[in-house]
Amino acid sequence: MKILAPYQEAFLAYLASQDFAKEPQGLYAPIEYIIHLGGKRLRPILVLMAAEAFGAHAKKALPAAMAIETFHNFSLIHDDIMDDAPLRRGKETVHEKWDVNTGILSGDAMLIQAYRYFENYDVQLFKPLLQLFSKTAQEVCEGQQYDVDFEERDNVSIAEYLHMIENKTAVLVAAALQMGSMIADADNKNQQLIYQFGLDLGIAFQLQDDYLDAFGNPETFGKKVGGDIAENKKTFLYLKALELAKPDEAGQLRHLYSLHPDDDTAKIENTKQIFVESGAAKASLEAIEQYTTSAFKNLEKIEISADFKKIFTEFGNWLMKRKL
Amino acid sequence: MKILAPYQEAFLAYLASQDFAKEPQGLYAPIEYIIHLGGKRLRPILVLMAAEAFGAHAKKALPAAMAIETFHNFSLIHDDIMDDAPLRRGKETVHEKWDVNTGILSGDAMLIQAYRYFENYDVQLFKPLLQLFSKTAQEVCEGQQYDVDFEERDNVSIAEYLHMIENKTAVLVAAALQMGSMIADADNKNQQLIYQFGLDLGIAFQLQDDYLDAFGNPETFGKKVGGDIAENKKTFLYLKALELAKPDEAGQLRHLYSLHPDDDTAKIENTKQIFVESGAAKASLEAIEQYTTSAFKNLEKIEISADFKKIFTEFGNWLMKRKL
Repeated sequence: MKILAPYQEAFLAYLASQDFAKEPQGLYAPIEYIIHLGGKRLRPILVLMAAEAFGAHAKKALPAAMAIETFHNFSLIHDDIMDDAPLRRGKETVHEKWDVNTGILSGDAMLIQAYRYFENYDVQLFKPLLQLFSKTAQEVCEGQQYDVDFEERDNVSIAEYLHMIENKTAVLVAAALQMGSMIADADNKNQQLIYQFGLDLGIAFQLQDDYLDAFGNPETFGKKVGGDIAENKKTFLYLKALELAKPDEAGQLRHLYSLHPDDDTAKIENTKQIFVESGAAKASLEAIEQYTTSAFKNLEKIEISADFKKIFTEFGNWLMKRKL
Repeated sequence: MKILAPYQEAFLAYLASQDFAKEPQGLYAPIEYIIHLGGKRLRPILVLMAAEAFGAHAKKALPAAMAIETFHNFSLIHDDIMDDAPLRRGKETVHEKWDVNTGILSGDAMLIQAYRYFENYDVQLFKPLLQLFSKTAQEVCEGQQYDVDFEERDNVSIAEYLHMIENKTAVLVAAALQMGSMIADADNKNQQLIYQFGLDLGIAFQLQDDYLDAFGNPETFGKKVGGDIAENKKTFLYLKALELAKPDEAGQLRHLYSLHPDDDTAKIENTKQIFVESGAAKASLEAIEQYTTSAFKNLEKIEISADFKKIFTEFGNWLMKRKL
């Protein structure tokens, strides 16, 4: 997306200037590996955009952007261990390329490193930035724990699910934006508005991700379509289908989610059919629309220039139009 | 030890006032479990003692003491996973009582929680405390990585070993003392002196621990005597013995450290004999003495009352007289 390019370039240049070739290499090489695996760098870009929107030079926001991206990658290392995932962005995960112990320890060092990037800010800014960062980091851990807990539970409510993705995904997006605004000395009201904009957008983004996992175009989605269904993951689609479906349909869905067939083509197709027929697919699109609308309503209220509102609107629309 | 009792009580009362019964329980119950497993609470006690020595009320240092103890316990959870240790303080380790994933995630949350305790301090104190904390936490990770690396290497030097235990153990003791002094607004010179006192004492403590592991009194040591030898751990004793021993003795020692016998009594006895005959045991006691003396020399220079110097001296002597 064109409007993101200058922010992405600024962030990548700053990332390239960081020195990871430190001793002991066993600790720092995995950090260098994962942080350079790529990705869209959306979270750090949001820090920079928010800082500029409120009148600061993006340069001032680079250490916070780096902290957010470092934290995000720390969470990927530890989540990949917990999920026993072999691949991340198409490459070996850290615990696969090295081992689980390396993943644990390098992840720990990365979390600490994330905190250290904030040391670039003066004492007055340092504390509020750190408070938001720690609160967010704790919420991300809680979200991950809820996600783990839900695997074992068969009475997860929609509200609980939304709370989980809010913590696991949305709060970091929201915090990224708020940090940018803090660095630009935005007042508390505007900080809260941009946080809320990010929170709603983050939830919409995750719901969209869940939706695309089932109904995305296999040729453009990038991952296997139906992966969540194959793994019996209790997404919004699944929980909503259970809520809306007739008893026999719900029973059928529960049955499908008890299976682990070698060839899961039929399981995925039958599940998707229930998602559609129960109205869960439609409800999912409506929820995405609702959170996106709510995000844009808050965006309207933020005291930034019309130009930057347009940029954030374009960004939101781009994020939400990945269904193509 | 009597002089520690009031500090220990103050810390334990503060610990008891903390609420760990939070949701999700899967995340917080393991944190509550390990933080209440006990231990001597030496590190938090040192924070409180240093604060009082420089004229602050110990109460002001309680959140920092809690942060240090929380960090220490975070490192125990993750280290126990890496070492595949079944027991900690005679009880099941977190990853044994729950599972490895729980240990990873609860450990992460604990590291974040450690940072959050510092939020009790005003902006002026918050930043330098956090900088010292992050620097220390990073060094502890580096020390753990060196410890892991040394298992695979057979050319570890004494200097490298000392650097490793300095990072893995001593810097946290040193930082605990410095934090107490910072909270009492000590000047930079005194902060550095008490840090250095803690650093030397921490190294002496770890060397003592290594020595006692081989030569402690089985009836009072608390752990299996010879455990490090059984696990072929490259301690100061081992590395010094290789340095001092005649070629055939050194060859014999290397051979002993290649064995994993079911009954390791003979292996332990033969190794200890080489430790003694090579002069490594004596050199180890001399090194302990040297670091302790160096610690006390720095203690002399610190601008605190004679009463507090006496208290720290008693503390140091008590710590170093565990050979009884």
